[in-house]
Amino acid sequence: MTVLPPIIKPEPIPGTHRVLIRVSYDGTAYAGWQRQQNALAVQQVLEEALRKLTGEPIVVTGSSRTDAGVHAMGQCVHFDTHSRIPADKYAFALNTCLPPDIRVLAGMDIDSDFHARFDAKGKRYTYRIHNALHASAMYRDLTAHVPQTLDVERMQRSLPCLLGTHDFAAFQAAGGTAKTTIRTLEDVQLAKNGDELTLTVKGNAFLYNMVRIIAGTMLDIGMGRIPEDAFRTALETGDRLALGITAPACGLELTQVFYQQPLIGQTLFGMVK
Amino acid sequence: MTVLPPIIKPEPIPGTHRVLIRVSYDGTAYAGWQRQQNALAVQQVLEEALRKLTGEPIVVTGSSRTDAGVHAMGQCVHFDTHSRIPADKYAFALNTCLPPDIRVLAGMDIDSDFHARFDAKGKRYTYRIHNALHASAMYRDLTAHVPQTLDVERMQRSLPCLLGTHDFAAFQAAGGTAKTTIRTLEDVQLAKNGDELTLTVKGNAFLYNMVRIIAGTMLDIGMGRIPEDAFRTALETGDRLALGITAPACGLELTQVFYQQPLIGQTLFGMVK
Repeated sequence: MTVLPPIIKPEPIPGTHRVLIRVSYDGTAYAGWQRQQNALAVQQVLEEALRKLTGEPIVVTGSSRTDAGVHAMGQCVHFDTHSRIPADKYAFALNTCLPPDIRVLAGMDIDSDFHARFDAKGKRYTYRIHNALHASAMYRDLTAHVPQTLDVERMQRSLPCLLGTHDFAAFQAAGGTAKTTIRTLEDVQLAKNGDELTLTVKGNAFLYNMVRIIAGTMLDIGMGRIPEDAFRTALETGDRLALGITAPACGLELTQVFYQQPLIGQTLFGMVK
Repeated sequence: MTVLPPIIKPEPIPGTHRVLIRVSYDGTAYAGWQRQQNALAVQQVLEEALRKLTGEPIVVTGSSRTDAGVHAMGQCVHFDTHSRIPADKYAFALNTCLPPDIRVLAGMDIDSDFHARFDAKGKRYTYRIHNALHASAMYRDLTAHVPQTLDVERMQRSLPCLLGTHDFAAFQAAGGTAKTTIRTLEDVQLAKNGDELTLTVKGNAFLYNMVRIIAGTMLDIGMGRIPEDAFRTALETGDRLALGITAPACGLELTQVFYQQPLIGQTLFGMVK
């Protein structure tokens, strides 16, 4: 289990302005979002592209430190720069310097006191399961393969008790740095489309590995390995052992990050209305 | 443009029995289905896995010679073997010898006069388009990226004239080996879901590059580059120049192959009822 160090908030550099970009990536080839010593992270690749583009040693701050193998459709990232590149041109400019498994989708100027992580009011994650005897060749890196028969209705019945504000202490892996384990889930849904199961979860914030623990527990419930009310038990007792496995990283996608501020380009950045 | 040689029907080997398997692959890493001299094809990888499994120098025959970069969910493949492996165990056995971008989904015994290609009564293809300003990081190999604004309703209106039996002479690339260019399309539909456009085409058989020419022409119609009735004009005149571009291989998937014979495991093999 990797213990993540606390995030370091970069000092604003005098004379710079702050830019917010929305980034999508296929996390398969990366050791996660956060820059590391001995492995390639998305943050590093993005910072190297920004250095190439602007000539500046820019440090970026992401809304969410996704794990190795986890994907993103809506990672929001801010950075400070002296560059005169119009903010709405960052996507085109950066994409020429980035590998095809990382794409910048949008960019905008933002107040210099805006913080991509601390100002996030909510996040939506998607977890994809390929439920078939054999793994998917085409979507092997974007889904978790589960060959066992699943009782989907049992899984769907188990989820609503997670909605609302609870102490999710049982729902975190070792290595979390959160000061409080109280979280609010606004939406949790499981949809089935042929062999594909899609779990979507929206909440104000998430503990370390929380979505993967929810997905894994839901799967164990679907296989009949643990009781249907395992989520409720874990919320009441705070006992991690009441829950199931941590589902594999490859099924997880950070789909959207929500902010309170009424910003330009809301649809691109997924702002709260 | 690669000119494909005509398929060589392997001679049945005395004492063998015939097996039919359904194969899925991500075609990104391969020079197409058919074995080649200087590039790795799916057929070669599958034959090497069969050799490893059975010890026999098995030659396989696929229902469709997909191009480089084209994907498959339902490539049907037959071969003759002395092996006593039960046919329904081939998927599990072969998948342990295959890379994760090729998966065998099912297997069954079949009459020794059955031929995966010549007995195919129909095929369904799917063509996926990512219609957004920037390419998709996650689905970059499984979709064709089209940044231009598309008039989807215009595209949808252009398609129905393709239905039925026509001379599709204009709808083939150089290198096709078909004796007749008469084909019957039973279904053609374009669906939109957010940034994703999905074209599905079902017909009795397809000319070389026919689906990619339909997809590319439909896209040119959607951009207003060619008239809305381009398909009708091409059917009437046989003129390839009336049509649009050949859309990129990465958007195409061989989804299902249909056979007349009432076989066991119809749902897995997509037999005509």
